[in-house]
Amino acid sequence: MENNSKKTALHEKDGIPQPESISKTALDKVVRSRKTQPSAATLISGILSGDISALSRAITLVESTNLDHLMKANEIIAACLPHANQSLRIGITGVPGVGKSTFIEAFGKHLTAMGKKVAVLAVDPSSTISHGSILGDKTRMEELVKDKNAYIRPSASGETLGGVARKTRETIILCEAAGFDTIVIETVGVGQSETAVHSMVDFFLLLKISGAGDELQGIKRGIMEMADAIVINKADGDNVAKAKLAKTEFNRALHLFPAKTSGWIPKVTTCSAYEKTGIDAIWDLISEYSSLVKSNGYFGEKRQEQNQYWMMETINEQLKNHFYHHPEIIALLEQKKKAVQNDELSPFAAAMDLLGQYFK
Amino acid sequence: MENNSKKTALHEKDGIPQPESISKTALDKVVRSRKTQPSAATLISGILSGDISALSRAITLVESTNLDHLMKANEIIAACLPHANQSLRIGITGVPGVGKSTFIEAFGKHLTAMGKKVAVLAVDPSSTISHGSILGDKTRMEELVKDKNAYIRPSASGETLGGVARKTRETIILCEAAGFDTIVIETVGVGQSETAVHSMVDFFLLLKISGAGDELQGIKRGIMEMADAIVINKADGDNVAKAKLAKTEFNRALHLFPAKTSGWIPKVTTCSAYEKTGIDAIWDLISEYSSLVKSNGYFGEKRQEQNQYWMMETINEQLKNHFYHHPEIIALLEQKKKAVQNDELSPFAAAMDLLGQYFK
Repeated sequence: MENNSKKTALHEKDGIPQPESISKTALDKVVRSRKTQPSAATLISGILSGDISALSRAITLVESTNLDHLMKANEIIAACLPHANQSLRIGITGVPGVGKSTFIEAFGKHLTAMGKKVAVLAVDPSSTISHGSILGDKTRMEELVKDKNAYIRPSASGETLGGVARKTRETIILCEAAGFDTIVIETVGVGQSETAVHSMVDFFLLLKISGAGDELQGIKRGIMEMADAIVINKADGDNVAKAKLAKTEFNRALHLFPAKTSGWIPKVTTCSAYEKTGIDAIWDLISEYSSLVKSNGYFGEKRQEQNQYWMMETINEQLKNHFYHHPEIIALLEQKKKAVQNDELSPFAAAMDLLGQYFK
Repeated sequence: MENNSKKTALHEKDGIPQPESISKTALDKVVRSRKTQPSAATLISGILSGDISALSRAITLVESTNLDHLMKANEIIAACLPHANQSLRIGITGVPGVGKSTFIEAFGKHLTAMGKKVAVLAVDPSSTISHGSILGDKTRMEELVKDKNAYIRPSASGETLGGVARKTRETIILCEAAGFDTIVIETVGVGQSETAVHSMVDFFLLLKISGAGDELQGIKRGIMEMADAIVINKADGDNVAKAKLAKTEFNRALHLFPAKTSGWIPKVTTCSAYEKTGIDAIWDLISEYSSLVKSNGYFGEKRQEQNQYWMMETINEQLKNHFYHHPEIIALLEQKKKAVQNDELSPFAAAMDLLGQYFK
């Protein structure tokens, strides 16, 4: 621009200012629209009318670490709560390699084809960077991503499972208020996250592949007992016979477990997410479960229990958080741990010493 | 006595005081011996020399709710700690009716016959009255009770599992310091107590009876996965074939579980505690486990982990205790719970409100 150029020998006089090549008015408008978040009221009415953009913005507030954002998020959640709780929440777990993404894509498409609105969320506390490894690569579900009746949101990031779980729980409320009637929550069955997911869903599905042995090693203890259904994926081509065998084995194993308080007997089934076979049977099975637990009252009871659980869990987590971040405790903890390790102090005496300092 | 009688017409004069029919010196001695607890030092040296009476008195101090007693108990435990940790700790669980008492009697007698010193403890938080329902009736183990190389102590009483667990953990230390090389800890597999017991033993044994079905219903979820061995008891008479079948089934089921970090593959075996058959094989199996985990380092690691676990658990329990007994929290809790129940408040918002009050 002329008026910014250095004065040289060729310079004659200052000309009149040249007009900006970018309209300042237009720029201001863009900057303003980026900076000005819509009000809580705008987001609430957007969500309740099923506006995906409002939903996404509200979820971003839920996931924020900014206090103002969180207060706004709380306002939105409070307004959405009476409109939530109308969906079926399905948890899906399985170690990497069982084909979770392909399964969720096939399962989700099956549901949207039936006229359902499906939200797919994930809980993966390991992914503090880049918004999660699961679902991070949306191209793995390219059909579902394009489906206007599906909404895919990667795992919230966070340092603790508790934090990620809170964000996902609140995101469920927002999705339900936005009209999604089926919420699918994915997790990797290797850490503690599947216990958290189990505590926020109505139905828990464990995805496996046939060929017992190695792939079972990776799955966390206790998950099999949590499952309402075990689905053996990749039952296609040469795998069909193996998958059937695995089905028999898992069925036999499940019979040794104690009965569920839901009154439901866990089912084992096979499918091929790749060939899209067996998917309808899985939905039928989930519907059967849903009818059972809604008629026997377990559905509502479990949701109430889950609410109480999350309230208690949050309290518990915050109490521990406060304790372990206390300067005196930080200073003493390692020393007491060492004394316990060297059999100089019983674990109880060590705990009591620390608590004495904390409550002093 | 003359000098206490009423003065009547027959009364002449006060005679000399008659001697007391009970020697005051003797009485004082009895009262004093009842009131005067031996000093901590006396109890410590008693325990370390294997004196059962000193051991019992020290355990009574551990179980006391009197602060002076607990301080004394802590002193004794601290002195015993360097002499503890030399035993093998075996947890035994099973629902009522599987024959735990008969099994422990047969098992214990087998061990004492081998020259071992066996302490049998119990964790049963349900028994707040009368020192525990399990082991409460020592006549169920009349052979073992008479055995001078066995020591049987019923479950401590206490309102919380945490309290009972602490007492048992400390009792283990005292028993080990008194020279017991095998600690058997019994629990009923219906509550949460078996998780606590699992966290204080080296080897966890699940006792069952054959005839799959009903008796499995009572056992808590997740216990089968904790077990290092499943023993099918009452494999006698008509039951032998059924027990063998159950063994095959459980073996098959255990194969579906993920591998244990101990490197141990859980075993299934049958026995008849009544006919005293199969007991030796169970001990062989436990010895095999013990050799494995001592050689691969898991034994020591697990004990260290257990110590850390109990330290953390105690802290956690006390933090919650303090929170839920806080007057402001007591006043608010039900109100917040109700708001969550009516979908007026999310579980997280409710928790945050309560925490705000607590830390104010």
